[in-house]
Amino acid sequence: MTSSPRYLTGDAAGIHEFLDRYDVFLFDCDGVLWSGDHLFPGTNETLELLRSKGKQVVFVTNNSTKSRADYKKKLEGLGIPSTTEEIFSSSYSASIYISRILTLPENKRKVFVIGETGIEQELRSENVPFIGGTDEAFRREITPEDYKRVAAGDSSLLDPEVGVVLVGLDFHINYLKLALAYHYVKRGAVFLATNIDSTLPNSGTLFPGAGSMSAPLIMMLGQEPVSLGKPNQAMMDAIEGKFKFDRSRACMVGDRANTDIRFGLEGQLGGTLAVLTGVSSKEDFVSGPIRPLAYLDKLSDLLASD
Amino acid sequence: MTSSPRYLTGDAAGIHEFLDRYDVFLFDCDGVLWSGDHLFPGTNETLELLRSKGKQVVFVTNNSTKSRADYKKKLEGLGIPSTTEEIFSSSYSASIYISRILTLPENKRKVFVIGETGIEQELRSENVPFIGGTDEAFRREITPEDYKRVAAGDSSLLDPEVGVVLVGLDFHINYLKLALAYHYVKRGAVFLATNIDSTLPNSGTLFPGAGSMSAPLIMMLGQEPVSLGKPNQAMMDAIEGKFKFDRSRACMVGDRANTDIRFGLEGQLGGTLAVLTGVSSKEDFVSGPIRPLAYLDKLSDLLASD
Repeated sequence: MTSSPRYLTGDAAGIHEFLDRYDVFLFDCDGVLWSGDHLFPGTNETLELLRSKGKQVVFVTNNSTKSRADYKKKLEGLGIPSTTEEIFSSSYSASIYISRILTLPENKRKVFVIGETGIEQELRSENVPFIGGTDEAFRREITPEDYKRVAAGDSSLLDPEVGVVLVGLDFHINYLKLALAYHYVKRGAVFLATNIDSTLPNSGTLFPGAGSMSAPLIMMLGQEPVSLGKPNQAMMDAIEGKFKFDRSRACMVGDRANTDIRFGLEGQLGGTLAVLTGVSSKEDFVSGPIRPLAYLDKLSDLLASD
Repeated sequence: MTSSPRYLTGDAAGIHEFLDRYDVFLFDCDGVLWSGDHLFPGTNETLELLRSKGKQVVFVTNNSTKSRADYKKKLEGLGIPSTTEEIFSSSYSASIYISRILTLPENKRKVFVIGETGIEQELRSENVPFIGGTDEAFRREITPEDYKRVAAGDSSLLDPEVGVVLVGLDFHINYLKLALAYHYVKRGAVFLATNIDSTLPNSGTLFPGAGSMSAPLIMMLGQEPVSLGKPNQAMMDAIEGKFKFDRSRACMVGDRANTDIRFGLEGQLGGTLAVLTGVSSKEDFVSGPIRPLAYLDKLSDLLASD
């Protein structure tokens, strides 16, 4: 759509009308509620306002290294009250997708994980069996014997029950894990990624993100993974699978046009709301190819509705 | 060119005429001279024939983990007499390119290496200073402190003299190395790769290749490296820089249309000769988009010239 987004800051009647249209608000977090470890003023009051009006609030993050329980602790650390049920991380999204949406043969239900403990916790919460992950047995060099065992399909190295390769951010990525993941997919495993963000912000600069863990496999396989993070709709399907909401009465709130707003638009949500406290600029939202329904200078401008 | 390649097997006069046109023969190795650890019958006799006619023979390999000295040992192990001077590996190609073709500022001549000992040996042979590579100091986990040091540009972690990042096959690839390589390029270092083959054959199957080490950086940076391996012409320039041959009187011999034959065609060599003992098929060479000047069933068919 090329229509201009509505600017709601200072427009009390417009905000009131906008909020009335939705029952569910999906929030991107970093750049919307906070930046790094700095909570934006008015974040808590805005969330309280929405809750007081009976709105369902959902926190949607692509960070796969944390489980929902870990993320709840992060929210608490920043002073944001929340329940685990309100949190939707790409690690949880991936687990839901594997357990409730993918149909795997009885003997192919194990997941080979490239990633950290957040993924493992969420797979456990959905009773999905897995190998790899933080297991020290995979944090080693490849040996001459490994090449032969892989080539021979040795079941003590290549578990025949693995039917899914799930790739998230792994601070312990290594050659052996990449080699095994490649062979699992070549043998027929479904290739999934928690998210495909190439970089990860930390300490005010960028580091390799989950997408960078998938990149070698994408190049080797000539195949993209199904990504369960924003903007991929598999994540929206997984959120809907859990909350069963009416998409026409849901609104995605975010700071990035090409992930958050795109996620809401492609998910055919009733609304998309952008804020200017993160990555994308007013110019991006007003004149770019991906435009929200409305935008605000900052999230707490919603407080002017009353 | 869409002209059909000439089929030389059994055509003694054609072979004789073909050989007379060239003074230099550049050989791809695996798939041409041998397959894995199996030397093709007649390989040695064919090389001897060429040498007896005064031809310069050059062995051209994209394998960056071996130095020329290592590769000479491999050739000897397969019974092929050779000298180190006749061997051109992508690790050597990269070293020549850095030392003789790149112009780096006086205080930016250090190379950050992702790769194994073959690269280190060749950089040393060209007196190019480097860090990284097989140094155990880089074979460790990233720490919370590292994020802050990288963000602050701490010179004890990010060496200010690094002006080149060179990425080859590294069996000890890890998160820290990728993070440092990313930041060096963001700070202005030249991004080079020994080669960009996504996979590496071993034990009859495939494992991650040098290209898979560059893949995360390509995704993060949105930038391709200059690759010094076939088919990139930086490798041809480096070979020419060493041998000073007349390109119109040189012939590339290989088994892969999209690397070997393309390498010779784009290098505007006088000849390209394909063999059917490797990756590409007769169909590829006769009807594909990249066609050699001539082709043979197998290299030793050249012995029929007399």
